[in-house]
Amino acid sequence: MSHEIKIITETDLRQFIQLDMESIDCIKDAFAKLSTVDVVMPPILSMTLPDANAEVDIKTAYVPGLDGFAIKVSPGFFDNPSLGLSSLNGLMVLLSATTGLVQAVFLDNGYLTDIRTAAAGAVAARYLAPENVSTIGILGTGVQARLQLIAALKVRPVKRALVWGRDAGKTVQFTKKLSADLGIEVHPMQDRQQLVSECQLVVTTTPTKDAILSADCLHPGLHITAMGSDQEDKNELDLSVLEKADLLFCDRISQSTKLGELRTAHDQDLKSILGKACELGDVITGRMPGRANENEITVCDLTGTGVQDTAIATLALDKMRESSVGTTVTT
Amino acid sequence: MSHEIKIITETDLRQFIQLDMESIDCIKDAFAKLSTVDVVMPPILSMTLPDANAEVDIKTAYVPGLDGFAIKVSPGFFDNPSLGLSSLNGLMVLLSATTGLVQAVFLDNGYLTDIRTAAAGAVAARYLAPENVSTIGILGTGVQARLQLIAALKVRPVKRALVWGRDAGKTVQFTKKLSADLGIEVHPMQDRQQLVSECQLVVTTTPTKDAILSADCLHPGLHITAMGSDQEDKNELDLSVLEKADLLFCDRISQSTKLGELRTAHDQDLKSILGKACELGDVITGRMPGRANENEITVCDLTGTGVQDTAIATLALDKMRESSVGTTVTT
Repeated sequence: MSHEIKIITETDLRQFIQLDMESIDCIKDAFAKLSTVDVVMPPILSMTLPDANAEVDIKTAYVPGLDGFAIKVSPGFFDNPSLGLSSLNGLMVLLSATTGLVQAVFLDNGYLTDIRTAAAGAVAARYLAPENVSTIGILGTGVQARLQLIAALKVRPVKRALVWGRDAGKTVQFTKKLSADLGIEVHPMQDRQQLVSECQLVVTTTPTKDAILSADCLHPGLHITAMGSDQEDKNELDLSVLEKADLLFCDRISQSTKLGELRTAHDQDLKSILGKACELGDVITGRMPGRANENEITVCDLTGTGVQDTAIATLALDKMRESSVGTTVTT
Repeated sequence: MSHEIKIITETDLRQFIQLDMESIDCIKDAFAKLSTVDVVMPPILSMTLPDANAEVDIKTAYVPGLDGFAIKVSPGFFDNPSLGLSSLNGLMVLLSATTGLVQAVFLDNGYLTDIRTAAAGAVAARYLAPENVSTIGILGTGVQARLQLIAALKVRPVKRALVWGRDAGKTVQFTKKLSADLGIEVHPMQDRQQLVSECQLVVTTTPTKDAILSADCLHPGLHITAMGSDQEDKNELDLSVLEKADLLFCDRISQSTKLGELRTAHDQDLKSILGKACELGDVITGRMPGRANENEITVCDLTGTGVQDTAIATLALDKMRESSVGTTVTT
């Protein structure tokens, strides 16, 4: 029996899916599902290609109640920039959760991942940052550095952004462009400690293997979202940050202890840290309290989940179903 | 920088890839690569969807020296037949091993897997079965039962096939059709022991969880290929078969001990079995001896490897590259 499959390019997708309240709510609902229903989310399939200075991650998740489930392929080929290509590419496939038939292939070069990752940052900020965030700090100058700032603007009254990057010259360029594009003050900073001291919300977006924030940066009322670490050798926050935080959250504890900021605490069996770690979905669904007042220090580690991929791919196909966009292949 | 991606349907593929000596040699080379180069082949990502009576497996492998690497998604939705759909579907994606960019999406509904799995059976028969196989036995009546017989015909002078299936009526239908299609004698058999006694080569192609062959069936000069088991609860051969075999092979020891016929021996740490298990690639490359004479009893367990997927997908794209078949999408 033949069926139709939609082939959607990144250009097509950009018409239908943006970083807006609809995608943020979609990802919020995904966090809630992860907390309330029996999601099946196998460990990430990760393959290293040593000859090519590359890695490929494959994620998937089945969420009861959704029509489909996504399988996402994320290649990172780190020599690509020397060829004029982006390091990150990939595609997402959406299959029917009833028949397993392929519904759509999103040749998105990682666009849906960019959006759902930024949307997850917005959800973390919405539920955990203090109400009044006038200054936000961004560590990193990549795609997510930009998107996480835009995400924060959707959920908090941010007036000013401070940005630190490893390359000072690049950071200046980045802040100039961001300020022009977004119409808010954006300043480059060379001192991370000073940056944090001026912010109510800090988002770390780097692939660093050595922590770039330690406890002496922290001050009452600060929320930190760490979204850079997603591999077994990456780590943005010093253990002292996790120790000092009043509340500690992550998207999925089982992933954070393997690939995220909880990994070192897990390896060292630090119960003072592990004992207070909760999942963000439990705050969204009211199962756990979130920030209780404007003085608490909160930290949220986002490693990225297959549930988010399934949610954003489902939203994308729903929005395109009645449209003629893309190529339809019958198989 | 935009690039082109080929979208290929099963119908397109069937024009270019068949179960012939070219695909058999392609899979033979894949076995050799697995034996001689540092293939990166992560464990299979497997997800069970309990609500849907379904499972999804994802395989991949990077083979140094090949231009691309495949990622294969194999959904098995076992209630599909009641909807008039095949249980097995899926697709394969071929990415550049240099840049990670998607080269081709094969919407093949499992066709490439069917071909590479049958081709692997032909390779096992070519290297391990006695030279003179006049009668072959097939256990099972599914797609692979048919294809494994066709595969054997390519490499051995088979005159007659005997088929056992759980459903006697279905088996009769199956043998009639096979005989008409292939122009050789094909007979249904109800007694597995009798079937094996008349054969020089037996291929088991069932999804059984309880062994269907035990040592009392074996006779000198027999080769058995067991290709049905590919999950942690499946098993076609009794331990006594593995004990009694003079030579014992598999495609990948680390997979066979987890998903294949070596699993029980591995769980029970049966050194008499594990100690003699070798990989088929080592026979092909001459690193290990294969069958020494016409009297040995040989057994080969095939679980299916990501290397085979990468090899067949690479062959498919190579054969189609200069053709206008399929849909080209620019992204």
